[in-house]
Amino acid sequence: MELSLNTATVRKQWNLAQMIDGCARHGIRGLSPWRDQVAALGLQKTRALIKEHGLTVTGLCRGGFFAEKNWKDDNLRAIEEAHVLGAPALILVVGGMPPGSKDLSSCRQRIQDCIAEILPEARKAGVPLAIEPLHPMQVTRAAVNTLEQALDMCDALEPGGAQGTPGVGVAVDVYHVWWDPKLAGQIARGRGRILGYHICDWLPATRDLFNDRGMMGDGVIDLPSIRKWVEAAGYSGFQEVEIFSELDWWRRDPDEVLRTCKERLPKC
Amino acid sequence: MELSLNTATVRKQWNLAQMIDGCARHGIRGLSPWRDQVAALGLQKTRALIKEHGLTVTGLCRGGFFAEKNWKDDNLRAIEEAHVLGAPALILVVGGMPPGSKDLSSCRQRIQDCIAEILPEARKAGVPLAIEPLHPMQVTRAAVNTLEQALDMCDALEPGGAQGTPGVGVAVDVYHVWWDPKLAGQIARGRGRILGYHICDWLPATRDLFNDRGMMGDGVIDLPSIRKWVEAAGYSGFQEVEIFSELDWWRRDPDEVLRTCKERLPKC
Repeated sequence: MELSLNTATVRKQWNLAQMIDGCARHGIRGLSPWRDQVAALGLQKTRALIKEHGLTVTGLCRGGFFAEKNWKDDNLRAIEEAHVLGAPALILVVGGMPPGSKDLSSCRQRIQDCIAEILPEARKAGVPLAIEPLHPMQVTRAAVNTLEQALDMCDALEPGGAQGTPGVGVAVDVYHVWWDPKLAGQIARGRGRILGYHICDWLPATRDLFNDRGMMGDGVIDLPSIRKWVEAAGYSGFQEVEIFSELDWWRRDPDEVLRTCKERLPKC
Repeated sequence: MELSLNTATVRKQWNLAQMIDGCARHGIRGLSPWRDQVAALGLQKTRALIKEHGLTVTGLCRGGFFAEKNWKDDNLRAIEEAHVLGAPALILVVGGMPPGSKDLSSCRQRIQDCIAEILPEARKAGVPLAIEPLHPMQVTRAAVNTLEQALDMCDALEPGGAQGTPGVGVAVDVYHVWWDPKLAGQIARGRGRILGYHICDWLPATRDLFNDRGMMGDGVIDLPSIRKWVEAAGYSGFQEVEIFSELDWWRRDPDEVLRTCKERLPKC
């Protein structure tokens, strides 16, 4: 599997134009940009630069946040942007509980209802929606927290199963799911639904619930096993590096970050 | 359900004798002590003081840590101490991956094997072993991370099901399991296996993976619903308050902490 750079990994050091250039220089052929960066550079300019540098878009981050007021307009715009960029999926960070709520179950139902509402537009645009289960410690940011739950949601939204390119599927980020005792079985169940595979590592002495991810190989995740499960389930896309790291990688020279990602890939 | 104090809640302010006295003064009739505190006060002295103050022991914290070298001796001692104190269960914090390991699956198998090895002694002593699933973010401390996984382990260890008092069961701590989409169903499945029920709250802006729990009512956990599920599954013990809080409750006057626990109970 080839390497892709999720642009969150160097977002404190570079703008999107620099990231595109950096990927090309380092021989990283995939890119998954964030919408705020695309907006800053301009959608058409982003598309042109990515094409010019011969990169493949592996996803657009992110739609979702269904608890917010303007969720529908925002998601329809995100689908359109993903279409323009030729992204194979729009990654959904589904949002958590609205302020004051303790009703996690209703919040989860709402997420499914909102996805159902935008799914026809996504299909029309040829942009599959990728539900990304987030780590249970991030439940207030995204209330889909296991791969099983995400796949249950896919089944409810597309009861006939994934046929060819699914309208809705999942993004598997090792950081969020590696701990799950049911992971291997759920990845196998995900055949035809896996729209993205994100890598990094879990540091045993994690200092922050959001922004202390490790570089592949620096933590305790058995990356080769998870990759094999994902491949066995038919996924043949890129391995996308996504590292949020306030105290370490966001402070380093971004060329060192990209070089390190490349060096570590054979162990992933 | 009556209130019990897990002594971790005021462990920075009071020694065990002060906690026992504090519970009696505040009309808190349950106590779940930690073994280091019991060792400091003395086992027989602890037993005598608890009896003298009319308290009920609702659990002993903790056995487990099966990745450590001396795990067996230590767990047999813990069973004996739980027996002396009349604890209805020995709470197991099962331990995580040994340093250098990335093999979560073997580590989990080892946990089950170790419990199988001490289970006969536990049964002989009349001390049920309570597997406590810990939050997935604490997987390096305890590699049992969902109630479903803990109950699967119970079923494997006692294939005939829980008959009367089980040899092995679970402790349900809302902090660790509240996020789980399968929680209601798994609590129902736990009938006859629920050996403890621990409460506190999840703060939306959690600052630490271990020691930033909230007081009941200050967070986003729907405590009344979980309590109802636990009661419907036949649990009739205490609600045990367990709050690890480096930045807040461990810095407060312990009498204020106990008073607040009592005040919040009707909303739990």
